[in-house]
Formats: sequence, C-alpha cells, structure tokens
Amino acid sequence: MSNLELEFRSDNCGRAAPEIIEAVVKSNQSTALGYGADELTIALQAQMGALFERPVRVFPIPTGTGANALALAATTTPFSAVYCSPESHINTSECNAAGFFGSGLKVTSLSGQFGKLDPFALDRAAATAGRGQAHKSQPAAVNLVQATDLGAVYQCHEVAQLGDIAKRHGLVMHMDGARFANAVAHLGCTPAELTWKAGVDILSFGVTKNGGLLTDAIVVFNDEIANNIGFHLRRAGMIWSKMRFASAQVLAYIQDDLWLRLATQSNAAASTLALAIQAIEGTRIVAPVQANELFLSMRSTALDHLAASGVLFYRRGPDLARLVCRWDTTQQEIQQLIARIQQAAAAK
Amino acid sequence: MSNLELEFRSDNCGRAAPEIIEAVVKSNQSTALGYGADELTIALQAQMGALFERPVRVFPIPTGTGANALALAATTTPFSAVYCSPESHINTSECNAAGFFGSGLKVTSLSGQFGKLDPFALDRAAATAGRGQAHKSQPAAVNLVQATDLGAVYQCHEVAQLGDIAKRHGLVMHMDGARFANAVAHLGCTPAELTWKAGVDILSFGVTKNGGLLTDAIVVFNDEIANNIGFHLRRAGMIWSKMRFASAQVLAYIQDDLWLRLATQSNAAASTLALAIQAIEGTRIVAPVQANELFLSMRSTALDHLAASGVLFYRRGPDLARLVCRWDTTQQEIQQLIARIQQAAAAK
Amino acid sequence: MSNLELEFRSDNCGRAAPEIIEAVVKSNQSTALGYGADELTIALQAQMGALFERPVRVFPIPTGTGANALALAATTTPFSAVYCSPESHINTSECNAAGFFGSGLKVTSLSGQFGKLDPFALDRAAATAGRGQAHKSQPAAVNLVQATDLGAVYQCHEVAQLGDIAKRHGLVMHMDGARFANAVAHLGCTPAELTWKAGVDILSFGVTKNGGLLTDAIVVFNDEIANNIGFHLRRAGMIWSKMRFASAQVLAYIQDDLWLRLATQSNAAASTLALAIQAIEGTRIVAPVQANELFLSMRSTALDHLAASGVLFYRRGPDLARLVCRWDTTQQEIQQLIARIQQAAAAK
Amino acid sequence: MSNLELEFRSDNCGRAAPEIIEAVVKSNQSTALGYGADELTIALQAQMGALFERPVRVFPIPTGTGANALALAATTTPFSAVYCSPESHINTSECNAAGFFGSGLKVTSLSGQFGKLDPFALDRAAATAGRGQAHKSQPAAVNLVQATDLGAVYQCHEVAQLGDIAKRHGLVMHMDGARFANAVAHLGCTPAELTWKAGVDILSFGVTKNGGLLTDAIVVFNDEIANNIGFHLRRAGMIWSKMRFASAQVLAYIQDDLWLRLATQSNAAASTLALAIQAIEGTRIVAPVQANELFLSMRSTALDHLAASGVLFYRRGPDLARLVCRWDTTQQEIQQLIARIQQAAAAK
Repeated sequence: MSNLELEFRSDNCGRAAPEIIEAVVKSNQSTALGYGADELTIALQAQMGALFERPVRVFPIPTGTGANALALAATTTPFSAVYCSPESHINTSECNAAGFFGSGLKVTSLSGQFGKLDPFALDRAAATAGRGQAHKSQPAAVNLVQATDLGAVYQCHEVAQLGDIAKRHGLVMHMDGARFANAVAHLGCTPAELTWKAGVDILSFGVTKNGGLLTDAIVVFNDEIANNIGFHLRRAGMIWSKMRFASAQVLAYIQDDLWLRLATQSNAAASTLALAIQAIEGTRIVAPVQANELFLSMRSTALDHLAASGVLFYRRGPDLARLVCRWDTTQQEIQQLIARIQQAAAAK
Repeated sequence: MSNLELEFRSDNCGRAAPEIIEAVVKSNQSTALGYGADELTIALQAQMGALFERPVRVFPIPTGTGANALALAATTTPFSAVYCSPESHINTSECNAAGFFGSGLKVTSLSGQFGKLDPFALDRAAATAGRGQAHKSQPAAVNLVQATDLGAVYQCHEVAQLGDIAKRHGLVMHMDGARFANAVAHLGCTPAELTWKAGVDILSFGVTKNGGLLTDAIVVFNDEIANNIGFHLRRAGMIWSKMRFASAQVLAYIQDDLWLRLATQSNAAASTLALAIQAIEGTRIVAPVQANELFLSMRSTALDHLAASGVLFYRRGPDLARLVCRWDTTQQEIQQLIARIQQAAAAK
Repeated sequence: MSNLELEFRSDNCGRAAPEIIEAVVKSNQSTALGYGADELTIALQAQMGALFERPVRVFPIPTGTGANALALAATTTPFSAVYCSPESHINTSECNAAGFFGSGLKVTSLSGQFGKLDPFALDRAAATAGRGQAHKSQPAAVNLVQATDLGAVYQCHEVAQLGDIAKRHGLVMHMDGARFANAVAHLGCTPAELTWKAGVDILSFGVTKNGGLLTDAIVVFNDEIANNIGFHLRRAGMIWSKMRFASAQVLAYIQDDLWLRLATQSNAAASTLALAIQAIEGTRIVAPVQANELFLSMRSTALDHLAASGVLFYRRGPDLARLVCRWDTTQQEIQQLIARIQQAAAAK
Repeated sequence: MSNLELEFRSDNCGRAAPEIIEAVVKSNQSTALGYGADELTIALQAQMGALFERPVRVFPIPTGTGANALALAATTTPFSAVYCSPESHINTSECNAAGFFGSGLKVTSLSGQFGKLDPFALDRAAATAGRGQAHKSQPAAVNLVQATDLGAVYQCHEVAQLGDIAKRHGLVMHMDGARFANAVAHLGCTPAELTWKAGVDILSFGVTKNGGLLTDAIVVFNDEIANNIGFHLRRAGMIWSKMRFASAQVLAYIQDDLWLRLATQSNAAASTLALAIQAIEGTRIVAPVQANELFLSMRSTALDHLAASGVLFYRRGPDLARLVCRWDTTQQEIQQLIARIQQAAAAK
C-alpha cells in the first residue's frame, strides 16, 4: 500500500482558486481608501445584488465563525434564544462565539435529521418559549446550516417552510452558508430562491472553504439589520483597513459562476466517492451525500487501518469518519481513496 | 493648480508590497492543514523568535483593533482598568472594542505629551487606584502606542521607564505597534530592545499599514498569556481556517528586513515633508515628526484651500491637519504636496 | 365548591418567617459600616462555618438567579461549558443570566431523570468535549439543583458520584440550593455531607423560598474561588451598602435550626398531599415527592376544573400541574386542596 | 478628648427609618404572588406616579450601582458612549458595572465643577464624537448625579439646560439620584420639576442612603425604555421573588413626605456643620454644602489628629476629608465633631 498521504480532512485544506489569487494581485494597482470605502467593495455591493436579484448589503468578514456570530448578534438582544440543530457549527464548533458577540444570548438546539432543523420542533419551541415572560430566553432567531454539518442539503421548499414558521413567530432567519455554493450547485436553484425568497434575512456567505483565501462575507437582505452591522464589525475588530483585498476575493469568487464551478467539482468528487463506497462491503454511508462531505461508518479497526494507510480524515466517533472533498480534489485522489477503503474494509 | 489628487489620508491607503503579494501567490502550491497547523504558521514562530532574539508566540490576526482588544482581554479581568494616553487608538478609534473583548473592562486615559503616557501620571494612577477595593476598577494593564497617534516615537529608555512602573504595580504592558516598524526604523534599535527588554509583555505587531494586505499579528513574550489566546481568538472568530495565507504575509514582511525598508521609506517621506514645511510661513508642525505622520496647523481657510486643491487628508480640528506618508508615497507626491501647501499658506 | 383561593403556585408566595422579620427589626439598633464590613456579616461567616463544619466564605446576594449566575461566572472562563440537567433553573428560567455573568459561557444540558444529572452522561460529555481544542467550549463546571426542579432529592452518594466525575475532569461543582433546606430536611444528613464532603465547591444557599425576605447567599468552600467574588458582586451591583439587613436574615435563618424546621413543614405538607393524591383515581404523580414540590398529571379538563375551583398553580403542560407547598401552608389548605382535586378528578 | 467614635463615613452607615422597618413588618400578613405581581408593587406604580405627577414605571432594585448600570444598559447600545463628570459614581466607584451591564459601552468623563457636568463640554463632546462613524463610540446617554458626588446640587434650570443639549444630540438623560431626596429637599422644588420636566428620561431613585434597608428603585419616564427593563433585570438576577418586601420599603419611604423629612435632617446637619467649620481657622470647605456631604480641607497632620480623636471619615487626599451626615445624625454628634475639628485645627 502506498504511503502517500491523501487529504480528506477538510475543504479548508484546499488551495485558493487561481482566479481569486489573480484578483488579489490585480487589486494592488493603486492607492485606495480604507475600511470599505474603496471601489472594489462598492462594486461588490452591486455584483452581489445582481447575483441575488435584489439590493443587498455585503460585508466581507475574516471567518465563518465571525460571520455567524455577528449575524446573530446584529439581529437579536442579549435576552434572546437562537434555535439551531444540535450538529450546527454555532453549537459545536465556535467556542462560545455566539454567546460572546451576542452578550450572553442562548444557543438552543432542537432535534432534526442529518443536521437539518425539524420544522415541528421549531414551531413548538417558539410557541412554548414563554414570549414576554422575563425569566425566559426570548425566541429571536433561527439558524440553519446549508449544506448541513452532516452533508445534507435543504430543498428550497424546506427552507421556505422554516421561513414561514420563523415569520409567524417573529424570528429572524439566519443561514450559515459556509457551504452555500455546494448547496446551490446541488440544487440547481438560484441563490435568491434559496435565501430571501424562502425567508432568509441574513446569510453567512462562505468563500474560504470553496477556493477563497482569507475572507467570507455576510449578505443582508434587510436594510434595518444592515445599518448596525458596521458598528458591530468595527467593535469586533472585523473591518480590514485594506478591505479592497478582501472584496477582490469575493468579487472574483462570484464572477462568471466561478463559485458554482468550484462547488460542482467538490460535489462531484463526493458523489463519485459515495457511489463507489456503496459497493464496498462493511461500509455504510450514514447521511445523504448532497454536497462535498461524506460520513462513513466502518468497523473501528477498519478505520484504524484506513488512517494507517495514509488517508487523512477526522473521526466523529470510534466507527464514524468524516471525509471532505475539496474543489481541487483530483480524480486520482478519489480513486486512491476508494482503493484504500476497499483494503481497509477487507482487512481483518 | 493641478487637480490631481494627492493621497495623504492614511498609510492604509497604500499598496501592498510586491514581496508580500508574491509570498501569498507562492503559498498556494499544495493543500495544508487549517487553523494555523500549517508549515508557514509554524515557520513564522521561529522566524519571529529570531527577529526578537527569544522564543515568542505569534498569532496572525485580521486587524490592529482586533490585536489590541484581544491582547488586553487576554491579560486582564473584567474588573480591570487599562491605562492609556487620551489620543491612543484604543481610546478614540476602536468603537468600544476593548470593552467588548474585555467583558466590560475600563479604558482609563492619563495625561501625556504627543500621545505618550506620562510616567508620573501612570505611577500615581496605579498607586491611588484602590487595588483590592471591590468598588474600584483594578489596575491591570498599560497600553502604549509606538509610534504614537501623534507621530512621536518612544525612546527605548522611555519604554523601559514605563515598564519599570508597570512591573512595580503588577501591570501587564501592551504595546500597540500599528506603526512598530516606523518606530524601530526611526530609532535604529533592535525589536527586542524596544519590547520585552524594556518590559513589554505583548505586542500588536502592525503589518497592514506598512505594506501588508489583510493581516497584523499579536506577538507574546510571556507563555502564560499565550496559552489562552487560542481560545480568545477562536471565540472572537479571528482564526482563519486558511491561516497559511496570513502567515505568508507576515513571513515575507519580516524577511530580509523588508518591514524596515518599507518603514524607512515612509519615515523619510515624512521627514522631507516636515523639513520643507518648516520653511513655509503660516504653518506650524505641532508634534515631533519621528515616524510617518505629520500634524500640521494652518489657518482654517488655508486648510480649506489645501483640500480644494486636491490634497486628501483628515482634519483633526478646524486648523489642524493630519498628513500620513505611505511606504509607496513617491518623491513626486511629496514635492507636489509641498507646492500646494505653499499655495494654500499664501492664499488669502 | 368554595371560591376561596388556595395558593400553590410557588414557595416564594409564602410569608417571611417571624423570626427572620424580628431579626431585621433588631439589627436596626445603631450605625454600622457598609458593604459587608458590619458585625452581623462578620458573625455570619463564623456561624455558617459552624453549620458546615469548616471555614467557608458567605456572600448574601439578592436572588437565587444572581447567586447561580455569579457562582458560575466566578469559577469559569468565557470559553467554558457548564453542564446541567435540561430542567435546571439556569437552563430554563434565568433569562440568559449565566451567559451574561459568564461573558458568553455556554450552558449545556445533559440527560437525566427527575431533574438530576445522569453521571454517565456527565462523564461522557466531559470526556468527549474536546478539551484543549480552541473551537470547542471547554468543560469547566457542573451545576446540580438540590432539590431538583422536579421535586426530587439527590442522595449524598449521588452527589459524591458526580463530585468524583467532576474532579476527574477538572470541573468545578456548583450546587443550586434554592431548596437546599428541603433536601437536607428530607435526607437527615448534615449540610457538610451534602456539599463539600461530596465534592461541592460552591453553593447557592436558598433562603427566600423558605421563609426569607430579600436575600439568598453564596457559600464558598474554596478560598481561591472566594477571593474574586467581591469584585464580581460589586460589578454586578449585588453588594448592598446596608448588608447588615441581609446578613441578619441569613443569621436568623440558620439559628437554632430554623431553616430545617421551616423546610420540614413544607416537605411534610407535600408528603401528606402526595399520599392523599395517590388514592384519587385519574391522577398520577410523575416525579418523586421528596421536597416540597409535587408534579401532578391529570386530564387537561380536570386541571381546568381544578383551576376554576380557585386552586392557584402553574401548568407545565396541558395535563401537568406543579403544586408547591410553603413553610406556611396550613393543614387546612392541604385538606381543601385534596378535596378539590377529588372533585376535579371526578368531574366530567 | 473623648474616645467615643463619631460616625461620619457614609450615609449608608445610618439606621433604617422606623416607618420603613414597620412597613416591612406589616407587609408580611399573607401570601402574595412573586416577582412584582403583588399588590404592593402595583400600588407603588400609582403612588410614585402621583409623586411625579405623571404615569411612571418603577422597578425596585437592590443597589444604586445596579440601578445606574441597568438604566444605562437599557437605554444604549454596546457601541455607545455615556457622558458623565469625572467624579461621578459610575466613573469612580462601580467596578466597571456600566461596562458590564452595557456589553462594553464606554464611560466618558467630561469636565465640570463640583461634580456637575459642564453644559458646554457636553455639547462639544456630543457634537464632535463622530456620530455615524463606525470606529467611534456613539453618543448615547448622559449621566448626572443629583446631589453630586461632591455634595453640590444642580438647580432645576441647570438640569433643564443639560436636558436641552441632550435632546438636541439624541442623548438619553439619566439621573443618578442616590441622594435625590437631599437635592429635592434642598431646592424645595417638585420631583417632577427636577426630572422629566427638565428632560430626565430615567432616574436612579435612592432609598438606602436616606433611611431604607435593602432597596433603591429605577423610575422610568419613557414607556419605550421601560418595556425592556424587566428582561434586563431578570437577566441580571435583580428581580426579587418576594418583591413585596422591597416595594413596601419604597412605598413607606415616599408616603407622607417621609423621604423629604429624612433628607431635610441630614441636610440640616451638614449645614450646621459647615457654618461652624467656616469659623475655624485652618479649615477650608472646598465644595458647596447643599446636600448632606461636606468636603473639608485641613493640613494633613490635622486630619491625622482628627482621625485619632475617634472621628470616622474617609480621606479623599492627604489633606481632604469627606464628612457625611445621616438622617439619624444627632445634634450632639454634630457638636462633638465641631469640637474635635477645632482641636485638630489647633493641634501642632
């Protein structure tokens, strides 16, 4: 067995897309005003508006964690409860960022399948939360992750169903779109259909995992929310003085459908992988493979074998592996991985 | 008079240095682990240690505001007072970031000249603060800005004097080095002499204003402080998943003295400017020009004239202008500016 | 059926005990230094130490919510996770107080029965939380409620088992003792056995619900924790200037076993009630009645009937009622309540 | 010289007024609903409304620090600056409470005399603060202390002048009325004239220092502000479950002008004292004596002598003493203090 390492730990292990690197280089021609008053940042507002088929406000922001926490802080009070799925990134992987940005707000996880929020659970939670009772965390926002943290993708009508419930209960709807591109590429819908047309008020628009360098973005579909975000960002040390170098990345990312082409590549890699794995005895794929992540269950010793063979991946339990495909995952890497999974499954 | 605009608003209007851009491009060769576990970030620790002549811990961080606020939060309690000069960036220009990151800590400004902290004021404030009395903000840290927000530079012995007082009162000493390169270039000392050898515990190491793109850094000279910073950063959404693209910038910045060459250029531009302005009647330079900033007092109408002539600058009062030179400010820009100041001063 | 109202909504609807009122009156003889430097507050330290058979630090504090939130804030960092049962007061009824005092800390509920924490769930949660990983909330404290929010009482060995697990994982153990007196009275153990001897580091010592007026207390069994609490309290506006009037209440409360006599009364009332209800067809008591609370399940229409009959109680679901006995609940009130429950159960 | 101690440290060293103690005793007749839903708390709303000649919302709250911090938090954002005098209690004596409750808001002190805010300083600060600029703390509220921390009293027209400026700049006006009774008693005006008629939006209504036991109150003149205060209070652990015992105190305090009678006594004691001291050589009263505090300058050795003679007071500098009269300071105590000041002034 080859010892060559195969990288399937995370999409953030991937390269930056050449088009985005090139845009950064090109944006360095002249002086420009700081803190987002530059031409690229202004152009970004219009381009993103075109992409979403309506005026939006776009704020490049260093990380997805920052985007999520700040989006929630900007749309809630310190007395708020934010509903999410148990597996959601804000609940499991952001070191209390939502509580920090939100002055102590409460992250409340509800049941659901494959990282999706169950609409009935949301409805019941909001209805029984005790709105107006001072000792109760007040229902304020709902967070959905698209694609989910288990690799599934909400259909547009599923988002819209949650959006209706959110609206009915006066909840802001936030979409954590760290893998928004993968979701749109999977669904073939428009970005508008998957967001504001389905009730999303504010979106963490992922760039980094899908070919960016150092920026994600917040996209706001609601002017009232947007007006305070500048203060939130500045207080959080999140407004780059040379914003142009971040805006250049986001602009290149959405130009000529680059973002969808990149996501299509990582989605396809995951699909190919899933198809091949299904034929291997001793393996089980435990969640829908609709984006670029695959959750693979194998005997614990088989996973040990797989790791020893040089495949890099994270374990989510003794017999559960997460495998993530990148935009730059090659066909050769996929084929080698399949071969090593076959060997691992067959090993005693 | 030409209508060509002359950019003197801020050093953050400047270009990125070509060497730094190139380093970003080069760092995109292969996959790499995220969140700072990559080779460039690891190499950065050693390179920065060599620069400072001792082991350090380095954390690339998106902005100077983030670096300052997080450095203070990581070294204080919520009951703390942080002493600074009235003109300091944390006191005037960071939208309550120190209070936010520090869970409500108090920023207390003390007197001083040209943006420096007066040692006697610091000593007295710490001595009379009421340490141990529960109703009093507890003295915890001192913040100095190097170069100061009025363009002056602390001598090494001035820092050391403050360091002694800080130590005596049990205060952590934080240096806001947004223009640290300009200060070192001006003094001709070593980075070590200006920091930990003079009592600095933690440094906001500026990169962006002096040729960087999207990152500054925190440099920690004290392991105990450093151990918690990862959590602080993560909670604040400040750890890039593709950290390598930030570390590449900082590495290129300190390699082969690039940072000092860039700062020497902007310092020299400011010196040239100062020398010429001193000869112009009706002008007064109100603070030492030791780094790349120049504070120019002229009649209010003369400043109006200057602005109308296409010179871009910020006003700090009706008759006070701040002019900032960049690493890429050209000799031609300097000469044109001098000419326009002469015209403005002469105009009725 | 009589229309006379019967008060079973909460123990905080009860009177203050005459002994405690009298102590307040008596404490008003002379001037006294403020903020806890008075003789009563000093005496309280010693008296509480005698009660707990070891030196302790006692801080009277206005409310149980304040005591809980402050106890947790004083023993954790902003990156912390605090484990608790889903029904715990900090999780359901304190309007994000723990997140507020704790600078955004995370309240994480684990499974358990009757409001108790399941030791295995605690062990597993702490073991798999990802200690040292910056993106994970760091395990820091465990909160148990004694008596629980469902009216059950932890046995001493159950507390000790949780204490062992907590110690093994480096967790501080906080006991929310809003009904600590009821638990001690039920168990017949010593306060020491139920707290520090079983691993409790810090205790919210309830007074108000069991005959007090306007104060509860924090009791600390760990000097290192105690030293910072003065600052936490002052910053939270929780240190009365005329502390003597609060300390007088707590002193009277623990003198001559008053607290246990009062709790024995409310416990006995609940026991009597439970015994009688068990004989009534159509009722079910859904949790152990070990303190002064009783959770009664009846058909929704029967509960409507009960409410219409003038019994005051809170509903925890369409067919679930909470009934709380007070120290001053009379035998007559109990008998009338039983009669009305019989009528409600019998009504169509 | 007698060794008998004379208590002049603080008005919070004073007794509770018998009328208030009696009201607490009387309020313990029956059960009552918790958290402010009781009859006394409801009656308090109406009584306080009568006192202020308009509908108000009243929230009893344990401490003045809590009242101040919560009033500011409820009327500002985390990006806010709150203007105050350098000597104000929120700036000097509340251990960062305003920053804590206000999620990191900034307390900005402006110049003024005798603890009053200078209207011109306020106007200039608000005008030049950089409203709308994201890097600047946003002007949001002004805090005045009545009577001031140096014992002076704002005239109604002085408050109104500040109120006009506040309104013009969109600032909420908060009055820290820890000694509001002393101010009203001194001025002989109505409470309405000194508050909402002069532009005050929210008042910390002091009770404790002037004969209360364990409560102060927030009085709100603006419904929009009031609606969120319940959540703020609950999250801060500031809503007593047995609120009736706090409301009883405030009700008794304002009934039949008790509050003004008590304040008149402490004011008169301070006046008598001031008059006598003015005739003693070697003494100087450094601020107007308009309420119950007196700031006395004497040689450092004379103050040592005074302290050694058994007079209890706080020193605000080597040669500056603060003397505070209580509602229960006796004529005999005043005369003895005068005698001892004479002796101290005469001693070598």
